Amino acid sequence: MNKTIPQRLQALRGLMKTEGLSACIFPSTDPHHGEYIPSHWKAREYLSGFNGSAGTLVVTTSEAALWTDSRYFIAAAQQLQGLPISLMKLKVEGTPTIPQWLGQKLAHLNGPQVAIDGMIASINEVETLIHDLRQQGGITLRTNLDPLGRIWPDRPAIPRAQALCHPIEFCGETAPSKLARLRQALREQHAEGILVSALDDIAWLLNIRGADVHCNPVVVAYLLVSPSSLVLFIDKEKADGIEDYLRGIGVETDAYTNIARRLRAYRGYNILMDPDETSYALFNACEGRRVVRAQSPVPPMKAIKNQTEIQGFRRAMERDGVALVKFLKWLEESIGKTRLTEIGIDERLTALRAEQPLFRGLSFDTIAAYGSHGAIVHYEATPETNAQLEPRGFILIDSGAQYLDGTTDVTRTIALGPLSEEEKRVYTLVLKGHIALSSCIFPAGACGTQLDILARRDMWRHGYNYLHGTGHGVGSYLNVHEGPHQIRMEYKPAPLRAGMTVTDEPGIYLEGQFGVRTENTLLIVPACEPLPGRGDLPRLRLWSPNPDAMPLPQNSGFLGFEPLTLCPIDKKPIIPEMLTPEETAWLNAYHQMVFCRLSPLLSNEETDWLREACKPLGD
Amino acid sequence: MNKTIPQRLQALRGLMKTEGLSACIFPSTDPHHGEYIPSHWKAREYLSGFNGSAGTLVVTTSEAALWTDSRYFIAAAQQLQGLPISLMKLKVEGTPTIPQWLGQKLAHLNGPQVAIDGMIASINEVETLIHDLRQQGGITLRTNLDPLGRIWPDRPAIPRAQALCHPIEFCGETAPSKLARLRQALREQHAEGILVSALDDIAWLLNIRGADVHCNPVVVAYLLVSPSSLVLFIDKEKADGIEDYLRGIGVETDAYTNIARRLRAYRGYNILMDPDETSYALFNACEGRRVVRAQSPVPPMKAIKNQTEIQGFRRAMERDGVALVKFLKWLEESIGKTRLTEIGIDERLTALRAEQPLFRGLSFDTIAAYGSHGAIVHYEATPETNAQLEPRGFILIDSGAQYLDGTTDVTRTIALGPLSEEEKRVYTLVLKGHIALSSCIFPAGACGTQLDILARRDMWRHGYNYLHGTGHGVGSYLNVHEGPHQIRMEYKPAPLRAGMTVTDEPGIYLEGQFGVRTENTLLIVPACEPLPGRGDLPRLRLWSPNPDAMPLPQNSGFLGFEPLTLCPIDKKPIIPEMLTPEETAWLNAYHQMVFCRLSPLLSNEETDWLREACKPLGD
Repeated sequence: MNKTIPQRLQALRGLMKTEGLSACIFPSTDPHHGEYIPSHWKAREYLSGFNGSAGTLVVTTSEAALWTDSRYFIAAAQQLQGLPISLMKLKVEGTPTIPQWLGQKLAHLNGPQVAIDGMIASINEVETLIHDLRQQGGITLRTNLDPLGRIWPDRPAIPRAQALCHPIEFCGETAPSKLARLRQALREQHAEGILVSALDDIAWLLNIRGADVHCNPVVVAYLLVSPSSLVLFIDKEKADGIEDYLRGIGVETDAYTNIARRLRAYRGYNILMDPDETSYALFNACEGRRVVRAQSPVPPMKAIKNQTEIQGFRRAMERDGVALVKFLKWLEESIGKTRLTEIGIDERLTALRAEQPLFRGLSFDTIAAYGSHGAIVHYEATPETNAQLEPRGFILIDSGAQYLDGTTDVTRTIALGPLSEEEKRVYTLVLKGHIALSSCIFPAGACGTQLDILARRDMWRHGYNYLHGTGHGVGSYLNVHEGPHQIRMEYKPAPLRAGMTVTDEPGIYLEGQFGVRTENTLLIVPACEPLPGRGDLPRLRLWSPNPDAMPLPQNSGFLGFEPLTLCPIDKKPIIPEMLTPEETAWLNAYHQMVFCRLSPLLSNEETDWLREACKPLGD
Repeated sequence: MNKTIPQRLQALRGLMKTEGLSACIFPSTDPHHGEYIPSHWKAREYLSGFNGSAGTLVVTTSEAALWTDSRYFIAAAQQLQGLPISLMKLKVEGTPTIPQWLGQKLAHLNGPQVAIDGMIASINEVETLIHDLRQQGGITLRTNLDPLGRIWPDRPAIPRAQALCHPIEFCGETAPSKLARLRQALREQHAEGILVSALDDIAWLLNIRGADVHCNPVVVAYLLVSPSSLVLFIDKEKADGIEDYLRGIGVETDAYTNIARRLRAYRGYNILMDPDETSYALFNACEGRRVVRAQSPVPPMKAIKNQTEIQGFRRAMERDGVALVKFLKWLEESIGKTRLTEIGIDERLTALRAEQPLFRGLSFDTIAAYGSHGAIVHYEATPETNAQLEPRGFILIDSGAQYLDGTTDVTRTIALGPLSEEEKRVYTLVLKGHIALSSCIFPAGACGTQLDILARRDMWRHGYNYLHGTGHGVGSYLNVHEGPHQIRMEYKPAPLRAGMTVTDEPGIYLEGQFGVRTENTLLIVPACEPLPGRGDLPRLRLWSPNPDAMPLPQNSGFLGFEPLTLCPIDKKPIIPEMLTPEETAWLNAYHQMVFCRLSPLLSNEETDWLREACKPLGD
């Protein structure tokens, strides 16, 4: 057993010597290129102790270095302390790239060879690396070795949770129907087959769910679609409960580890491989024969929700809203009276969600960040950092749940007591940005990069900005982060279409002071449509301050947003004079919708609390 | 002499037979890839009669077809009437691409060869064509033939206007200083030399101007920068007046037609060639040896104006503003009293500009479009279309001039009398978009694609849009359209930087009814800077409705816009209730600046008229 990091590095270097390798590269991905990595593939963490979500470790025979980005500079420095591993800060002046660094370190060698596991790295990653290393004095790259398989005696197994069918009442479209649409989309790209590696794409296509990955209800598997067959590569024991179902929809199964062997035997049709999503080793197994390199058609199909999924989202958001209202009422009544901590309120919120029907877990680890912790964008409270809440300042809570009928993602920043003028100004600017995006009308086909500025424009005038994206797609009882569309400053060409979900989450972060973020999950709808109501709810059009405004005609081609999230936005921190009449009207209309939809599901006391929280601004 | 189009096509087909060609392709470019084409290179027009700015003619031994875009569908159909040339509508369902069409037409041939003049088409265009034709059953492409040189007996000569020095008092930086910066930029791209083909880049680098191209004060030439020499390829007689100057800055000259020969002899250093700007034939002449294919560093250098150019722009805009005020006053006083036509008012405006010091001509052909003509985005009045102005509806006037110290580009839409409610609503929506962009504050490095939505957001809410870009750079006594930055829906990654000029020109066009566009040329400035004033002008910050608003600190990294254009915006069509208080404040502040800067240059009568035009809205 290799217990310490230096022992593990020593074992690796022993293997490198045997294999004639001058260096090994360990990225933070897995064969399915998802966001959360099962422990089995946490090679970089095993060898360095660094547990951030992004970072690459490079080990030579005498040195080691870890590249990570600004989110993790502090955490990585702490975790690497005392270890023989240098910290390399990405996007900081003077930091070499990995190929540049290897070029220097291996300059004295004759024809050095470097290894990366071709099952972990994508086609594009490996090809870029091959090119860049060649330019550094002819370093070659080996991709057919998984060093961890040889030096990690107690390596965790590949996850083995049972796979389940996801019933038609939640998914709304049969797997054969989705597969027929996929085959049509492939034909349009001159392909007859596809290797699907992304776990949420497989789950969506086959209407199956699992519990193999933290917060993502997916099954570790590959799906190979050929002109005449459908093969799911999955551990046999995991598929026990769905075997009949799979057979019924024409899917045969094979062992998970057989995928490369099967691809090596592949012949005779054009197979699409997405170079950002497919492992280089699997591309290599086909020897490049008739591979169509193109973006997978599955993410854009999955991103557009059908009517069943949309209705599911609305119902899931109502239940999530009920839990949030109970939580916010409790928080308001407890602050200053009971001892509250970040971890404590996270647990309370999770417990309230777990009481709701169809709850299946969290959709990501809750961020409950008090005071200056709110300025740490990816903060997660630990027993060491767990702050006690005081009746002043802000708590930022970014959380979400998995329900069988929908996935939620919501952020509220709550005033726990008195606020400074700057806290109020910053809160109001973030709200103005949130409203500007949420109330926008745009032609079908616009992309998120075009819309992004709406969330930033008002804060820019005051010299504030935020460096994360403004919005991402949300799965239907699937991953909380879903492509292909995004709303962000960097160019993302995927067009916004009716039926897509997307978050709206601007923020402002003042390091060492506080952070504010306000997030709803939105649904893209034709601009002519009124919001879904209940009984006495007026036909709201959130984009117009004037309820009598002429709606755009049917089929105008213009789209807008329906907020799916149902949770009051704290009014106490708002500086009302900073809102335009239109922004105030939006907020009041949103709160009217929240009240109408949630109050029938609440007790009298809770309804009274919500009525107050949803009263028009200034009333 | 080949007098008719059929005779010319016959002559071409004779040549094709001699040369063994199955087809010839004639794009609408010239060797310098500029916007306006000297007659010498108007092959497509000579062979088809079609004179639009965009279109490609393809001629086979028995057929001919012309591809053009929606701007020219009507004009092309008229011009091709009765000719044996089919019209191919780009971006219309079912229209084949040129390679697809050739694939069909030449399918019966064995190894057909097609020709395009490699001096006219860029590296990227030819390489794409080679690839696409190869996919159509192995059609090969020949690029070393200029068929027009053989079948156009009375072909106009290459332009021969005298080149002139552009003095330091206008350009603000010596040519050696610019060339030193260029060499530094080349080193950063691992190049030691560059072939500059873009005429405005050559004019800017060497501080020379000419009159070779319509509305563009440039000289037809090439500039070859090597590690040890600078060679300007230019007709000797054109360089007579600047030979001493060129020698003084270390530039030798060679005949224009020697460029390819010289490149064939080129050896021994990395030469940068911009694949979008460089002729394929010149790339080929180097045989690809040590060519660095990369975007030219000259456009981003030229785009950032120095202090002399900025001051020149401000002075040029004042003189242009004086001409515009005289014109608008005359128009208001004449409409309904004298017979006015589109061509007539164009001539009047040009005459008023020509009275101004340092005037050198127009920067583009004036668009003076009355009534429904305003909905034709690229309308140019001809004796046949020349409409008479009536005291009702809108006239849209998009015009600009070349002054020695700056280039102008301005659009105003003027009410000539009563307007419909829709005309007023559309006018106000365009104004709201114009103001939203002009008053925006953004971090340095943002690109135009991110800002574009500000000009569209309000009209989108009413279901309107426009399909052209929102803004382009403007040269300093150079081309009115200048890159690399643009503001438009399509992704243009070039970042916006302080010192760049850019137009702000949203519009709405209702076919057969009317069109509205409102355009200022803007300067990008640090957001902390007040606007330039004169004497009693308050320190305006156009982006803030509150003149006491806290400015952003120095070096905040945020940028904003100073409107360079000084011309009142017609207030009569505005629906005041549709403007926010902030938009009204912007308009009033802009008009205050226009009045303060222009009134000292006007007669008492003109000042009285301007005072009225610049009065606060509603006063």
